[in-house]
Amino acid sequence: MKHLVLSLFLSCSLFLAQAQEIKEDFKPSTKNQPGQEYPQVNSQGYARFKIIAPAADSVRVSLGLGGQGGTKLMKAADGSWMGTTAGPMDEGFHYYHLNIDGGTFNDPGALNYYGSIRWESGIEIPAHDQDFYALKDVPHGHVEQVLFPSPSTQTSRRAFVYTPPGYYENPTKRYPVLYLQHGWGEDETAWSNQGHANLIMDNLIAEGKTQPFIIVMTYGMTNEVRMGGMRNFKIEPFQTVLINELIPYVDSKFRTIADQKSRAMGGLSMGAMETKTITLANPDVFSHYALLSGGTYSVDDVKANKDKIKLIFISTGSKERPDPVRAAVVALKEAGFNAVSYVSEGTAHEFQTWRRSLRELAPLLFK
Amino acid sequence: MKHLVLSLFLSCSLFLAQAQEIKEDFKPSTKNQPGQEYPQVNSQGYARFKIIAPAADSVRVSLGLGGQGGTKLMKAADGSWMGTTAGPMDEGFHYYHLNIDGGTFNDPGALNYYGSIRWESGIEIPAHDQDFYALKDVPHGHVEQVLFPSPSTQTSRRAFVYTPPGYYENPTKRYPVLYLQHGWGEDETAWSNQGHANLIMDNLIAEGKTQPFIIVMTYGMTNEVRMGGMRNFKIEPFQTVLINELIPYVDSKFRTIADQKSRAMGGLSMGAMETKTITLANPDVFSHYALLSGGTYSVDDVKANKDKIKLIFISTGSKERPDPVRAAVVALKEAGFNAVSYVSEGTAHEFQTWRRSLRELAPLLFK
Repeated sequence: MKHLVLSLFLSCSLFLAQAQEIKEDFKPSTKNQPGQEYPQVNSQGYARFKIIAPAADSVRVSLGLGGQGGTKLMKAADGSWMGTTAGPMDEGFHYYHLNIDGGTFNDPGALNYYGSIRWESGIEIPAHDQDFYALKDVPHGHVEQVLFPSPSTQTSRRAFVYTPPGYYENPTKRYPVLYLQHGWGEDETAWSNQGHANLIMDNLIAEGKTQPFIIVMTYGMTNEVRMGGMRNFKIEPFQTVLINELIPYVDSKFRTIADQKSRAMGGLSMGAMETKTITLANPDVFSHYALLSGGTYSVDDVKANKDKIKLIFISTGSKERPDPVRAAVVALKEAGFNAVSYVSEGTAHEFQTWRRSLRELAPLLFK
Repeated sequence: MKHLVLSLFLSCSLFLAQAQEIKEDFKPSTKNQPGQEYPQVNSQGYARFKIIAPAADSVRVSLGLGGQGGTKLMKAADGSWMGTTAGPMDEGFHYYHLNIDGGTFNDPGALNYYGSIRWESGIEIPAHDQDFYALKDVPHGHVEQVLFPSPSTQTSRRAFVYTPPGYYENPTKRYPVLYLQHGWGEDETAWSNQGHANLIMDNLIAEGKTQPFIIVMTYGMTNEVRMGGMRNFKIEPFQTVLINELIPYVDSKFRTIADQKSRAMGGLSMGAMETKTITLANPDVFSHYALLSGGTYSVDDVKANKDKIKLIFISTGSKERPDPVRAAVVALKEAGFNAVSYVSEGTAHEFQTWRRSLRELAPLLFK
């Protein structure tokens, strides 16, 4: 009897959860193009789409609950295509696109962000902690587009450089530098456009939670990896650009502290794999290492350069595989390294994990 | 008989011109997304499009010869939609979009540029003079994204600031400033993204054709003008942002020469109208005025401040209405002003006109 009651109770709870009423408090996503009403998000994390294509036969949105193949839109009374995700989405930023009659297009209502080797539509599910990357009335750093000479690739290459508030007011002050890499299919625009790295830093600095430093973001040449995976990727071309070309350029054009102990490298996903390879191969260039959702360092990896390594930061989302991250950091600590792990609660292999990781990483750097 | 021969000759010439063979030397547009083969352009200026949407009923491209409503694509043998413009396009940059089964979408092959109050697809028809805005192996200036406090609009507003090569190497040198506005439906990204203002300046400076100066580009709040035209637009909000908020910010964060004789304002199309209104209302702020494809100054407009005005530059495309521009400059010169007109040959109300206008304007500034 007890079991029957419990079972009934559980069934009812499940039924109620599935039949959760969708709150009709939808608002335009903060990542919409100017003046666009759709896509919208509600306070529960549901996303709603509206696409005008009166003569189309089929409109799908790639975004939806895992394993359900996205969200199929239906013809609405006004002839538009509309649909709402089957459940709440994870907090934070998501890439998506439309499939219209078999072709891949972007949502004309949303801004575009470079991911998956193309400019994709972006949507923002309001996060409970969104304040840390909000645009606030605090002093703002600048994000500079630089074109640096790259003899090894025979062109001028682009990087973005964040200079913190105070950089201009203190014309003799010099700053440490974090080299921060995007993931596969993304590019040098990702960390400031969808990552809001500049706003995260502005806010941390305004609250006195981190010392100001420079962040340099460039293209990791990761698009060369397609289906074949890492084995098709050669690190050398990017390593040459970074170590031999970009770092000297930055040190000549910005007021950096141009030494190993004031230089960090970090990256997300494939950028983490690049970070691991390059930091281990260049122990006299970087002293602070950060892997975001992209592997770990073993004690064997780093023991030869123990005296040169000031920090190892490893993070991931709770919906990824956090246990190996925690275990790696425990082992590194036991071996005497200054190692820190961070697990972003309730997020997967997406930018909310990496925004939070930067928030956690920044205060630990260059101490 | 003479007339008949002439007539036959003309008819044949016309026929031959219309039947001009399309050269099959198509190459991907330089404004394509990474790795994308389409859209393509050929050496004659034709554009060819290829869109994947197997189940669509109709795919059109908004780009094509004037008055023909764009280019209708046809189902190709491989199931894709393909089509070529009916004739050569004007040299330079063009915005466009797709109409798929009645809906407006961007071409997934092309990069996006903000125009028409939305991010549009962009294509580049190689111009005979494209060298002046090419990315070359010369010292490059930086383009800085700044977020400046704007009490009047109760937010932080974005601007882009071009600092010329040498800005970092000469830490005590101060520079004059050009405030440069986009047109209606565009925003503060236009002059560097599709205008290549930074590359134009880098190249001019490398050739010793202009002195280095700073360029500031911000959003002219022009989207408030919809179908109603200029009468719905109030200049005051933007003027307050520019004069009371942005200029003091730039003068505090960059090494400017912060006086009237070292400050210019220019703009294209609706940005020219803003330039005209704001320069005339603020004769002690700007000394160099530039209107690109957006009206003229009459002698009556400027005679009260003749001593304060160092240059009036007025330009347009030859396919716009060049006569009023030339006439206005003749009148200004006769009245004793340092006035210069420029007509871009073979271009209309598009960015090739404005790229060339900046190339002509820069060497004339701050003499």
